[in-house]
Amino acid sequence: MRPLLVLVLCLPFIAQAQVNQDSIMIKKMSDEILTNGKAYDLLRELTKKIGGRLAGSPQQQNAAVWGKRNMEAFNPDKVYLQPCKTPSWQRGGKDFAAVVGVNGKPTIQKLEVLALGNSLGSNGLIEAELLAVANFDELEKRKDEVKGKIVYFNSEFDATLVQTFKAYGASGVYRRSGPSRAAKYGAVGVMIHSLSSAPDNAPHTGAMVYDEAQPKIPAVALGPNDAKALYAQAKKGTVRVQMQTYGFFLPDADENNVVAELKGTEHPEEIITIGGHLDSWDVNEGAHDDGAGVVHAMEVLRAMKALNYQPKHTIRFVLFANEENGGKGGAKYADLAKTNKEKHILALESDEGGFTPRSIAVTCTPAQFARFQTWTPLLKPYGTEVTTGGGGADIGPLTGYDKNIIMSSMIPDSQRYFDLHHAKTDVFENVNKRELLLGAVNIAAFIYLVDKYGVNP
Amino acid sequence: MRPLLVLVLCLPFIAQAQVNQDSIMIKKMSDEILTNGKAYDLLRELTKKIGGRLAGSPQQQNAAVWGKRNMEAFNPDKVYLQPCKTPSWQRGGKDFAAVVGVNGKPTIQKLEVLALGNSLGSNGLIEAELLAVANFDELEKRKDEVKGKIVYFNSEFDATLVQTFKAYGASGVYRRSGPSRAAKYGAVGVMIHSLSSAPDNAPHTGAMVYDEAQPKIPAVALGPNDAKALYAQAKKGTVRVQMQTYGFFLPDADENNVVAELKGTEHPEEIITIGGHLDSWDVNEGAHDDGAGVVHAMEVLRAMKALNYQPKHTIRFVLFANEENGGKGGAKYADLAKTNKEKHILALESDEGGFTPRSIAVTCTPAQFARFQTWTPLLKPYGTEVTTGGGGADIGPLTGYDKNIIMSSMIPDSQRYFDLHHAKTDVFENVNKRELLLGAVNIAAFIYLVDKYGVNP
Repeated sequence: MRPLLVLVLCLPFIAQAQVNQDSIMIKKMSDEILTNGKAYDLLRELTKKIGGRLAGSPQQQNAAVWGKRNMEAFNPDKVYLQPCKTPSWQRGGKDFAAVVGVNGKPTIQKLEVLALGNSLGSNGLIEAELLAVANFDELEKRKDEVKGKIVYFNSEFDATLVQTFKAYGASGVYRRSGPSRAAKYGAVGVMIHSLSSAPDNAPHTGAMVYDEAQPKIPAVALGPNDAKALYAQAKKGTVRVQMQTYGFFLPDADENNVVAELKGTEHPEEIITIGGHLDSWDVNEGAHDDGAGVVHAMEVLRAMKALNYQPKHTIRFVLFANEENGGKGGAKYADLAKTNKEKHILALESDEGGFTPRSIAVTCTPAQFARFQTWTPLLKPYGTEVTTGGGGADIGPLTGYDKNIIMSSMIPDSQRYFDLHHAKTDVFENVNKRELLLGAVNIAAFIYLVDKYGVNP
Repeated sequence: MRPLLVLVLCLPFIAQAQVNQDSIMIKKMSDEILTNGKAYDLLRELTKKIGGRLAGSPQQQNAAVWGKRNMEAFNPDKVYLQPCKTPSWQRGGKDFAAVVGVNGKPTIQKLEVLALGNSLGSNGLIEAELLAVANFDELEKRKDEVKGKIVYFNSEFDATLVQTFKAYGASGVYRRSGPSRAAKYGAVGVMIHSLSSAPDNAPHTGAMVYDEAQPKIPAVALGPNDAKALYAQAKKGTVRVQMQTYGFFLPDADENNVVAELKGTEHPEEIITIGGHLDSWDVNEGAHDDGAGVVHAMEVLRAMKALNYQPKHTIRFVLFANEENGGKGGAKYADLAKTNKEKHILALESDEGGFTPRSIAVTCTPAQFARFQTWTPLLKPYGTEVTTGGGGADIGPLTGYDKNIIMSSMIPDSQRYFDLHHAKTDVFENVNKRELLLGAVNIAAFIYLVDKYGVNP
């Protein structure tokens, strides 16, 4: 029995030694990233030299070339493209809307608007009375009043929700489904309150989806200030509005996911994926959404190579081609994983901006989660803890292929995200260098632990 | 024994009921602040209508009038002024510095600089060779080379420190004591790297203190980019520089702390203080430093009155007159507490900016700390936890009067603070409305718990 006793007595020391070894390695990665990090400079290039990167645009194609060239420079085991088709929605012109009558009196009040992504143009200027409703319940109650009108949904964020993604979830359904829900009762156009709590007037675009059974009416998001004023006006009297949009689709475009790979030394067949998406909306630089996620992945690769880290598992750094208005990049990645019978153990997505990291969220079994949580003390000095609820639009399709693949996400502080998400304000100047780099630090730390210890307790 | 048994059995239920009652009250305060909060609008007024508020300036006097009027409008039990004398340092002109020679060759490279607060003017243009040192150790080693030179201290932040206040602490000593340390060996002027990790070139001012035994030589902070370039240049060869500053003091000014009070219903003699400082540097709007702390205190007062909250203890909301270059506001507050034999139980300072709150830091006994920590689950939904290390320049003097007074602070995320601290970039536009309001939410929640349960377990 003696050896066993010795082993038992030693266990706490072994565990302690491991923790120390891990905290030393994580500190090394943190120092490397905070001192020599290239994420901020890469983001400057992506946003200022390439710019907005709507799927199907020349900028988006440039971004893939840029991503490939820059990841190759970090010298991973390989870098390759995964060709995929993406939609090619075109805004087509300068979206317009205005109030032209209040209580029967003519007026002209121009409204700050952006057509919703995927929405079709109005075919010229349309003018109609506005029907302003708080929500779908009110729409249903007043469905007999809808015909021939432009419907406004007051999809304002619930300010009391501390986590802004919850407010986005609750209001987001109006952007996505509002147009067809109103078209069903004969509306000729739709306006929504931008999905934002910003105290300004910049409108926020974003994807909508038509119900094929309904007429495809035009739809715009109003700047927050204009939206609030319009809703107040409409509650007091009748309001006539005009709108004109120009959206249309070109044939699907040929785009590429960009994949860099560090081959595993012990389990090369088991894959860990880190990624963000290259595409953005057309109206901004896609700095936080999702330039930050792109350069997070690139920075983790860079730091691992700089420290000569040789992972046990294969780690993939993926720049997805198309998330915003089609999700074709993630779908292609999962399709190929299935086709090639790959074994994926965990995927981590960074698509909530380059703000100060607050947690690494994980969707997994309770036993796996309990184990991941034991890593919180190692992450805490860098600002994060392990929480539930990981996932994302780009990595999500992997679970359709194998539901055991663990979904995880970088969760930064959410207060500023929807001030600029899909608006013209999502530019490089609104990204803070240290906040951005700390995101990469925490992803690197978590992925290092996943690679070292695997995902099963 | 029966009644005792019943009591024991009931305890968990009582505790649970209390937690529920507390979480309901905290949610109410949070909803009130996030929905009807005035902190952001007040901050806009303070920064845009009044502007920079150097102690002794007309703006600082306007700010006290503004603070009193606005707190009176919230209808607390009383609002009053505490007159105090503050220094009245004047920048006196546009600070100037330039490289005028490199390795004996004349050149002109203008440097972005700001004179350090409290430093005296150069009495005309001075020109000298630069002696660039990494730190005080190098200064001591090269003390024989100092005479007649302008000394540059490379007080750059250590980027690897995740908490930027630690970097500020380590580098801050060069701003505070660098001029006199160099003057001791015959330096004629001092330049430092701005106390900032911002990837830009805006110089950051801030207080220095002369050692009365040494000549009072002029001192400036260089913009981060210029500082790095100058240090690199000086390591490669000889560099001649010019500098001119204009600082001087007017006679001490008459300023005021502004104090609003909610009288305690059960322990009116026991005082809880919340505060921030009204003064700022002259080169910006003092939006984060410390407009945010000022409007945090005002917002907590507003929300408590809006909810008709009647505290058990007396709560004071204090806008301190002078922190930046003298600490006279906090000193006066503590002096009066002593004179009036007041009993203070806890003071909370908000002076680290209006960024997303991360923790409430508390300096107290281990038993008190253990008790405060049981409140973390109530604070966590709003983003904070209870941590060690509370304190601040304005509330600190209270401990000189009674060392048992608990020192606490609002600790927001620190990544962006030193990008703008004491630089021209500390303006209203760089404050996020929701981040600012969440600070007030967490202060209100913590103070509510302190008021309800007291500070002793």
